[in-house]
Amino acid sequence: MIIVILAGGSGTRFWPLSRLRHPKQLMSVLGGKSMLQRTVERVLPLAPERILVITNRLQAQESAEQLAYITTVPIEVIAEPVGRNTAPAVGLAAFLAVAPETVMAVLPADHVIPDGEEFCAVLRRGAIAAGEGKLVTLGLIPTRPETGYGYIQVAAASSGAGPFPVSRFVEKPDLKRAEEFVAAGNFYWNSGMFLWRADVILEELGRHLPDLHAALTSIPLREGRMEPEELEAFYAGVKGESIDVGVMEKSDRVTMIPASFGWSDVGSWSALPEVLEGDDNGNIVINAAGEVMTDARGCLAYGGGKLVAFLGVKDLIVVETPDALLVCHRDRAQEVKGIVGELERRGLKEYL
Amino acid sequence: MIIVILAGGSGTRFWPLSRLRHPKQLMSVLGGKSMLQRTVERVLPLAPERILVITNRLQAQESAEQLAYITTVPIEVIAEPVGRNTAPAVGLAAFLAVAPETVMAVLPADHVIPDGEEFCAVLRRGAIAAGEGKLVTLGLIPTRPETGYGYIQVAAASSGAGPFPVSRFVEKPDLKRAEEFVAAGNFYWNSGMFLWRADVILEELGRHLPDLHAALTSIPLREGRMEPEELEAFYAGVKGESIDVGVMEKSDRVTMIPASFGWSDVGSWSALPEVLEGDDNGNIVINAAGEVMTDARGCLAYGGGKLVAFLGVKDLIVVETPDALLVCHRDRAQEVKGIVGELERRGLKEYL
Repeated sequence: MIIVILAGGSGTRFWPLSRLRHPKQLMSVLGGKSMLQRTVERVLPLAPERILVITNRLQAQESAEQLAYITTVPIEVIAEPVGRNTAPAVGLAAFLAVAPETVMAVLPADHVIPDGEEFCAVLRRGAIAAGEGKLVTLGLIPTRPETGYGYIQVAAASSGAGPFPVSRFVEKPDLKRAEEFVAAGNFYWNSGMFLWRADVILEELGRHLPDLHAALTSIPLREGRMEPEELEAFYAGVKGESIDVGVMEKSDRVTMIPASFGWSDVGSWSALPEVLEGDDNGNIVINAAGEVMTDARGCLAYGGGKLVAFLGVKDLIVVETPDALLVCHRDRAQEVKGIVGELERRGLKEYL
Repeated sequence: MIIVILAGGSGTRFWPLSRLRHPKQLMSVLGGKSMLQRTVERVLPLAPERILVITNRLQAQESAEQLAYITTVPIEVIAEPVGRNTAPAVGLAAFLAVAPETVMAVLPADHVIPDGEEFCAVLRRGAIAAGEGKLVTLGLIPTRPETGYGYIQVAAASSGAGPFPVSRFVEKPDLKRAEEFVAAGNFYWNSGMFLWRADVILEELGRHLPDLHAALTSIPLREGRMEPEELEAFYAGVKGESIDVGVMEKSDRVTMIPASFGWSDVGSWSALPEVLEGDDNGNIVINAAGEVMTDARGCLAYGGGKLVAFLGVKDLIVVETPDALLVCHRDRAQEVKGIVGELERRGLKEYL
């Protein structure tokens, strides 16, 4: 198996800790290791032949540095010269796979999955289906009527560990439909985690995204590697397209395996309490030299290595970095990206 | 005239900006110059002969450094080896005055007085009464039924600029009495600002605090200066006593001049909005590299030189220093000293 980690996100909702050059997946969101490091460590028990990290130019160097300590498996970092969504990245990874029948697992770098064992078990099941020629997508069991994710519908009678044939993919629904989906019981969140054989996804790309397929097959390969100018030319020549819309929604080889592990994409600061244990008052203090919490409830503090003292406050997100200080009500965490937008408008690039 | 500035306070309610070695009066509470610097600059138009700053050993060096830029008047910093309240400090200053009939103005270092001109005018009026042998206290016109200050009662018919004979001093009252005082119209807050001749206060010390007077007159003086070991012996030998209780409440030479200038002792973080102009939403941002305030109201931020972003929050006090971060509801600002107490209990001396 080879592992393809898609790691190019900007994560503006984790400003000021996340920056253009230091996005969510490179952050120590949970304290300790970064999400990218955790993502790589999580797959090591699968003994992959090779790990490919696809990111952008701003983040490639830190990505490589963060992973340098892992020496038991070859890790290659590819820096996309421009963002073209997931289909070109996935196609490139498949094209670079030395053996055509290699199973690829495609994983986002910025998900929190506490139970690594169960995760690996699901991936092993997925790899079996993928080895048989299927395009396997992992479906997350929805825990709320989330309107920020796409959904996957399977036959109503589906139960057990899967794989289940997919009835359809549904784009982000409104709240009413999301509630219907959750109530129905045969809808899953589209996780963005996939498994397939390299040759199978290339075939499907040839069928559904022929321009991309043609661009891939025109790359002159030498021993599974390409020159920087060839990478540049490839990205300059292809359109942006997601693998979901471009292939998964169209192919008849798609199957879904329920992801029976705890999961969060920690989409914003307010999602952290889902994945981190708070104290008795629901306070989470990370990266602090010490804490004095007095009548504080439901607060999240990133302490910048300092002593943190909260007094008589609740439901706050407070994040300190060497050059910025965010104080935000936790119900407004989604709007942190608006602060980044405002800084951009003001030309304050040093804070982006 | 000589100016005696009492500058030994610890200001725990301004933690984490105030520390044992860096108390409120040495802080840039208002941004820019410290309260001590502002206190000294405020009296310069009076062309004093000499300024005496009486502080403690922890704060003496920074006090002297902060005042080194003022070269138009001799400034002497005296470091008390132990705190003995105000009477010994005042007595010592009087004893060190070279000319006995010199008028001394005694001023706390940690008051905010925006109108320096009016302040000097009041001090000039006070100096006239002091020159005539009176113990002059400045009475602040109360703006609320404050229970944290002592009150001075004058005769009911008193009006105009004073001086008024003092009927009595009243210790910190409860709320009901404070309300009666404010309603009565002939009660003033005891400001802790005094004027008198050196010889007159020494006479009154001889009458009301004879032990202190004896300790003073036994100091062997050389040209108005004393040796460190003499200072040490003096403080070791005297009892702690306030000049208010020890002399002012007992002497029949006391008179009061109404302090017709704006004033605040900025007793805690929540008092700052009284003396600093906020933006349209009542936010005050100090020492920040920039600010992005979104739906923020009534907040005070000490930014530690950083970009400060507030989103969807109100009535917060947020203070950042190189080693600590305070986030406090503004209604709880009085309790910040409790955080300092907690740090002390935990033995975290580096944060005190």
